[in-house]
Amino acid sequence: MPKKTGISHEELRRVNTSALLTWVHHNGPTTRARLTRELGLNRSTIGDLTSLLCDTGLVQELRPDQVDVEGVQVRRSGRPSLVVSPRPDVGVLALMLDVDRIVAGLFGLGGELSERRERRHQPGVHEVGQVVESATQMCREVLRARPDMAVLAVGVSVPGLVRSSDSLVHFAPNLGWTDVQFVDLLSSALALPVSVGNDADLGVLAEHLYGAAVGSSEVAYVGGTVGIGGGFLVHGQPLRGAEGYSGEVGHLTVDPDGHECRCGSRGCWETKIGANQLLASAGRLTGGGLAAVEEVVQAAVRGDEEAGAALDHAAYWLGFGMRALVRLFNPEVVVLGGTLGQVLEARHGRVLETLHERDGIDFAQNVSVRAGALGSDGPMLGAAEVALAPLLADPVSVMSAYREGNGAA
Amino acid sequence: MPKKTGISHEELRRVNTSALLTWVHHNGPTTRARLTRELGLNRSTIGDLTSLLCDTGLVQELRPDQVDVEGVQVRRSGRPSLVVSPRPDVGVLALMLDVDRIVAGLFGLGGELSERRERRHQPGVHEVGQVVESATQMCREVLRARPDMAVLAVGVSVPGLVRSSDSLVHFAPNLGWTDVQFVDLLSSALALPVSVGNDADLGVLAEHLYGAAVGSSEVAYVGGTVGIGGGFLVHGQPLRGAEGYSGEVGHLTVDPDGHECRCGSRGCWETKIGANQLLASAGRLTGGGLAAVEEVVQAAVRGDEEAGAALDHAAYWLGFGMRALVRLFNPEVVVLGGTLGQVLEARHGRVLETLHERDGIDFAQNVSVRAGALGSDGPMLGAAEVALAPLLADPVSVMSAYREGNGAA
Repeated sequence: MPKKTGISHEELRRVNTSALLTWVHHNGPTTRARLTRELGLNRSTIGDLTSLLCDTGLVQELRPDQVDVEGVQVRRSGRPSLVVSPRPDVGVLALMLDVDRIVAGLFGLGGELSERRERRHQPGVHEVGQVVESATQMCREVLRARPDMAVLAVGVSVPGLVRSSDSLVHFAPNLGWTDVQFVDLLSSALALPVSVGNDADLGVLAEHLYGAAVGSSEVAYVGGTVGIGGGFLVHGQPLRGAEGYSGEVGHLTVDPDGHECRCGSRGCWETKIGANQLLASAGRLTGGGLAAVEEVVQAAVRGDEEAGAALDHAAYWLGFGMRALVRLFNPEVVVLGGTLGQVLEARHGRVLETLHERDGIDFAQNVSVRAGALGSDGPMLGAAEVALAPLLADPVSVMSAYREGNGAA
Repeated sequence: MPKKTGISHEELRRVNTSALLTWVHHNGPTTRARLTRELGLNRSTIGDLTSLLCDTGLVQELRPDQVDVEGVQVRRSGRPSLVVSPRPDVGVLALMLDVDRIVAGLFGLGGELSERRERRHQPGVHEVGQVVESATQMCREVLRARPDMAVLAVGVSVPGLVRSSDSLVHFAPNLGWTDVQFVDLLSSALALPVSVGNDADLGVLAEHLYGAAVGSSEVAYVGGTVGIGGGFLVHGQPLRGAEGYSGEVGHLTVDPDGHECRCGSRGCWETKIGANQLLASAGRLTGGGLAAVEEVVQAAVRGDEEAGAALDHAAYWLGFGMRALVRLFNPEVVVLGGTLGQVLEARHGRVLETLHERDGIDFAQNVSVRAGALGSDGPMLGAAEVALAPLLADPVSVMSAYREGNGAA
């Protein structure tokens, strides 16, 4: 058990401002009365915290008709209750590096995406300096479009292993990167704090907050197209591992006699369920991602036997490999993102049948298997959330430091 | 992200009494000055908390010469600092149900085992009623031996799947139990609260607190003899899963064409590394557990080729299956308990070599693989810890409820 630390009165203020800001960020505008119930604090404490966060510029109190609030009833007589609302003009930049494109977005408190830019890489070229330059340009463009916004940080999603201690991109095979200090390069270009995370780790966070796994605290996520990555929530918290390299589900050995994998091993799960394997066995050109897999699905519906057999094969191995995740993690929900979600939707029965095929013991009768709900932008939403995390954890101090850094009071 | 709840002033007292009692329980007698530093609270708060816990009968302040304290220096002049010490006369019963025996122990705050009883099952007989009767007798014997002790609860270790919601023993193949409500049976016999946990989940907790994984928060534990179970710590907390069925490492498929397993599948890890498989391939009778495996190890040292080949085979598959754990969890430490610890010690090089054999990507260069340090009593220590958890979480309320239940003030 980790050392338990006591809570001082200063710490108490931090915890409670954090609880209030996090609540309205994730749940939207909320009356003081509801905050009292949800946070388990008394009315006067909620009043003090709200005033403090208003003064800090992180929330505002609005009339219900000024915001779009579910479940807030306007009183028949008298003034309506004000609702405590997150300020959408405070936020972060999020950046998603994919194999074929870079996406940049600006997210305010409350989670709204207000600016989005997308740019394709030159085919096959992911030279680090070039990626940093493109990303920097895109971020500057987004920032120029919203000069009114206080942008506190940048969150980046990367398809690879990211070391927790210093955010080093240790290995990103589909970018061809080994040991790249992307954080340093981008933060010196933009003069903003930068955090970097693995795309599947960010994907599971986003699906948990806004997508297919809302309300579940034990979640397994398997996503990707060419490369297959995994992200896990345990007690609602991301599984990181000792160094940040957890969730490498793509390199589970599912077939000891199978094909060689680019990781050096044989019969890795990725070699069975990756998009290119599916495309090749359907007799298609590899590399087309979601759109190409959608064509295979449609061809199978029209009776193309080669396409149907390729989907059957992928569905079998998808279910087979999920057994290991279910036996180890006993998740409530397995979310399949990217092309794996397409395979699930096309062959739901076969995936589930294979998952449970040899269950003498019912390890997984209650697991729910779902396609991701956020499409391919999921990891970007997760990156924004991680970039916001320091502000949500300590709202007053982080905002004060930001204003000092920008010469304002 | 789970709902964050604010902290009220009542909750603050609970958190801080919990932090202090948990600290001295795990670390032993401690000066107030050190508690101030370790818990991050000021001197007067520590004083108040100590008085409250003294009045509650959970700690006492002693002179250093009355206790065995590491690192407490007696002042050259003046009175020595008192040390805050856990009361060893408050504690819990722990019970371990193994395939071949039942063990009962009495543990005080501070973790000392003061009474221990062991009884073998009648060969092959694990009828629930009989096990409850034996266990009840053993517990009563232990309680009679220490009438001075306030015993608050019972913790039980079971070799099987335990459902978190109600502690139902869902499936314990080596006892032949399916859906047994052992908690109800034992708690009505003993009139004490009972908690039940999976032996590997309790094993990893014990190795983390007192054994081979002290100081590591990301730990994978694989233990057992006949059946193979897994327990994991993530951020220092036990991995449970949605229903409590996580960590079923024994039923990972490592060889899709392998032998049938009693779970209904084929080529499960358990069929490759379980003690009986090792004994059979060494040409020995199955069923002898640790002692029989030790004979195989000794025979191999003396040049018995069949014994040596059996150890080589077990070591290969031990390393092979650990790859999956390392890729998924990226643990800092893998602890191997029971007969697996013996295989590791006899064939350390081969296990590590197989683990890293195909690492094109360095998933696991820094993982430390160790034999368990607590022998076969580990899960019992874990069971005691889980039984103590409610007291450690809310010392004053739990102790008051206990005294009210016992008619004392």
